[in-house]
This record gives sequence, C-alpha cells and structure tokens, in this order.
Amino acid sequence: MSKFKVKDALKLRIQKPFEFEDDDPTATPGFDGDKDDLKKQAERYDDELSDLQELLFANGRSLGKDASSILVILQGMDTSGKGGAVRSVFSIFDPQGTTTVGFGKPTEEEMEHDFLWRIRKHDPLPGQIVAFDRSHYEDVVIQRVHSWVDEDEIDRRFEAIREYEKELADRNVRIIKVFLHISKDFQVENLLERVEDPKKFWKYDDGDVTERAHWDEYSKAYADAFNRTDEDYAPWYILPSDNKKYARMALKFLILSALREMDLSWPEAKFDPEVERQRILDSK
Amino acid sequence: MSKFKVKDALKLRIQKPFEFEDDDPTATPGFDGDKDDLKKQAERYDDELSDLQELLFANGRSLGKDASSILVILQGMDTSGKGGAVRSVFSIFDPQGTTTVGFGKPTEEEMEHDFLWRIRKHDPLPGQIVAFDRSHYEDVVIQRVHSWVDEDEIDRRFEAIREYEKELADRNVRIIKVFLHISKDFQVENLLERVEDPKKFWKYDDGDVTERAHWDEYSKAYADAFNRTDEDYAPWYILPSDNKKYARMALKFLILSALREMDLSWPEAKFDPEVERQRILDSK
Repeated sequence: MSKFKVKDALKLRIQKPFEFEDDDPTATPGFDGDKDDLKKQAERYDDELSDLQELLFANGRSLGKDASSILVILQGMDTSGKGGAVRSVFSIFDPQGTTTVGFGKPTEEEMEHDFLWRIRKHDPLPGQIVAFDRSHYEDVVIQRVHSWVDEDEIDRRFEAIREYEKELADRNVRIIKVFLHISKDFQVENLLERVEDPKKFWKYDDGDVTERAHWDEYSKAYADAFNRTDEDYAPWYILPSDNKKYARMALKFLILSALREMDLSWPEAKFDPEVERQRILDSK
Repeated sequence: MSKFKVKDALKLRIQKPFEFEDDDPTATPGFDGDKDDLKKQAERYDDELSDLQELLFANGRSLGKDASSILVILQGMDTSGKGGAVRSVFSIFDPQGTTTVGFGKPTEEEMEHDFLWRIRKHDPLPGQIVAFDRSHYEDVVIQRVHSWVDEDEIDRRFEAIREYEKELADRNVRIIKVFLHISKDFQVENLLERVEDPKKFWKYDDGDVTERAHWDEYSKAYADAFNRTDEDYAPWYILPSDNKKYARMALKFLILSALREMDLSWPEAKFDPEVERQRILDSK
C-alpha cells in the first residue's frame, strides 16, 4: 500500500490553466490502499489536528488581531459531499473554535446587497477555523451559467473576490479553497440514493436533476473561476471525490498542513505564575 | 458497577427550593464505576445521538417552523468545565446542525441594549441544537453579586427571562438548563493547573481568583435563579462536576433523553420517488 502523506495533499493544487478533462474524479492520486487503510491513515492525525487547533484558538484568545485563522471554502457539484467532508474534519475540533456556514439561495435582504455582503459577515475571527459550505463562488458560477448577470458584472465580481481574499490574507487568514470533484455518473448514484432511501428523502432537491443538464457549462465556469482566483495566498485544490473517504482525508491533510506551517507556540503568561499560584492558595 | 441510565440524568433536576448545601459536587449519583466505565458507558450512545440529531436536522429542513430544536444553557463557576462538556457532546453531532455560542463580557454595543438583545440573536433555528456557554443568567447573577443593578431591575429581568423562555418553548424549542456544580476546592485545583502548565496559561484569568471571594454570594444568587426560573418547559439540572466525565455523561444523557422524547420520524417525500427515479436515470 502506498502512503498518502500530509504534504501530498498540497499536490492536488490546480496547475494553470486548469481543465476538467485533465482531472480524474475516480482516482486516488498517491494512494492505492483500501477503505480501511484510508480510514486508519486519516485517523492517525486526529490528535495532532486537535492539539494544533487548540493552539490556534489559544493564540487567538491571547494575541487577538495578530493571531492567524483558517478559512476553508468548499465548492462542488450537488451531492459532491461538502457537508460530509466538513463533518468528518470539524468533528475533531473544539466547537468553540470553529464555525461552519452554509450559503444557500440568497434571501431577499441578501439580494439587495452586494454579493459579498452576506459572506463578509462570517469573516473568521482570530484563532478560528471557519468552513464555508458554498460561498461567493456561487455568484460567479450559477449566475453565469444561467446568464442572470452579464460578463461585465462577472469581471467585476472576480475583481471583488480577488480583493476580498487578499484583504483576508493580509489579516492572517489562511485560505484553503477546495473543489470536490465528482463524476457525472457518481452524481447519478448519489441522487438515486436520495429517492430510494426514505432516510434520505429530505436531502433530495428535484432542481439538482434540472441543473445536471448544465454540467458542462458548470465545469467551464468553475475552471475559469479557479484559473482567475488561484493565488498563493488563496490556492485552489481539486480533490477527486468519487471516493469520499479519499476526499475527506485530503481535506484533513490540507488543514493539517496549514496548521503545521503556522509553527505556533503556546502564548506566554501575561502574569507572574509564582505570584498567582500564591494568590490562588491564599484564596482557599 | 451500578449503571447510570439515560433517564437517571433526569433525576438531577432541581427540587425546589434548591439549596447548594443539599448537593454534593463530588458525588456521582446513580453511578459507582471508575473512569473507564464512565467513558465506555457514555460512548455506548454516540451512534444513537448522532442518528437522532440527523433526524432532528432533517425535520428542520423539511418542516421549517414546525420542527423542534434544542437549546442547552450551561452555567457554572469559573473552571467548572462548560467548554469541555460542550465539546465532548457536540463533537458527536454534525456541525451543520449545531451552534455553540459563548457569552463573555458584554461589548459596549451590547451594553446599550436590553440584556436579552444579544441572546435573542442566537435563538435556535428549527432542527438545530444550540449550546449557550454562559447566557442571560449571567445578568441575574454576576450583576447581582456586585450590586451593579438594583433588586427591582433583577425582578424585571427574571420576569423577562421567564417570558423569553416560554416564548421559545411555544416555538418548539426544548430548553435544557444545566449548572455544572464544582466544589471550591476543585476550583483551586483547576486554577493551579492554569498557572503551572504553560499549555494552560492562556486560560488563566486573574479575575477568577478575585471572584472566589464572592463564592457564597454567587451560590445564593444562582440558587435563587434556579428556584425562580425552573419550569417544566425550562428545567434546571444540577450536575455534580468535580468528576468531569460524570458531568459530561449526564449532559449527554439529558440531550439524548430530549431527542428520544421528540419521537421523530423521517420526513415524508415531497416528490413522487418513482417519477424522480426515472428523471434521474433519463438525465444520464
């Protein structure tokens, strides 16, 4: 069995110009074990992830604005497993230090504002790890595929996105952008499950089938979005996701890699430990 | 080893009039096993909890306003383990369906509003499980202990709290109010850890030692709060918490018990499964 290493996840970053034809959603690059191996290999890092997240959180509490944070942006076709991927990684962390936000169809109030208005409300606070399940990228993909906005507006939005992400990066937000890449066939399997298993009926949206007719246009719009917004401070990773466990492991490793690179240390005491120790004992 | 059952957790509800003298924070009522037994016993219910939370979430998605939700309110003296308790239970759930909110010292903007203003922002949405780490009860405890507000205002606040919680209950929010009861000696142990272990320095707040001088006044104010706000739709449970694992197990069982009582079922299909099955296959 070949071992997929933490740093191997970084190899899933797009190479520009990215085209979907070059990427196999059924592959598990760097790994040829079975499901059990995948699970075991991924779990090996749970304690480290948990410790590093606590360290990040501690830095946030102690350093305030100077502390780093992480923003994970997840995109993918319907049924690509975004929710499950967030769950599998975020369940390791302390809920105090994490937030997950799902961006659905904009509300009327949201529609009256610029597309980034609802996104900016959820900027990560120092020390936090935030996951966006869908994001501002919907606004340069869905709306483009359906020609609800013209190309000038799309250009303006890309510019706004680049500025927004740069602004976050300048405030020590580590941005990890992930596309869960599934095949059109795998989507059929997932959709069938939702109409066949009564426990999954609630997940079924008949609009998903309608959108399948636009698969190629979505792919084109996404590829363009990746090529125009992939930056070293806001890189795009394409995770082959027909094998959900592989995609989850890769996501986990991307976050772990970011945490390791921060090279964090425990905040220093803002008090005299010996003096405080005595105060505590005196208060008995 | 005696087995602490899920329904035994309900016995931890206060009996009015509650007085702290009658409650032993070092006890583990209904359980006499060791640490390993506790862990094993608590973990036995993780799958059921996870399944029921998904069911609750599914109902929220499907039924909207008619669906139930759960609000867990945690209070306790400093270092009583509120954060750890939330973590141990909420890590089982899907982060999509849960929110944890910590209420610290109010900001200036919050101070300019009524005390419930910042609380109401986090009302549980249908299908959600929300944890408040501290809450509006701080506003009838800390402020009372320090005489920052007069007794008339305290009376008004209790009335407002009762109305607010009734309003939530009428909207199908199951309220579970929990006090993590630790002994004054156990707090010393916890505080010492924070000044002795460099990994815990960031958790140390020298104000906690100052507040210890008011221990009895806090106990009195809390007991009064329990007695004045314990209702069948918003019950108070006192969890003995010198044994953190016991308190966590009890919290877990309280939530499980609430979920079980809801007697939820999977939402019915809002579509014709056979028709949709064919549509999906045709879209291949």
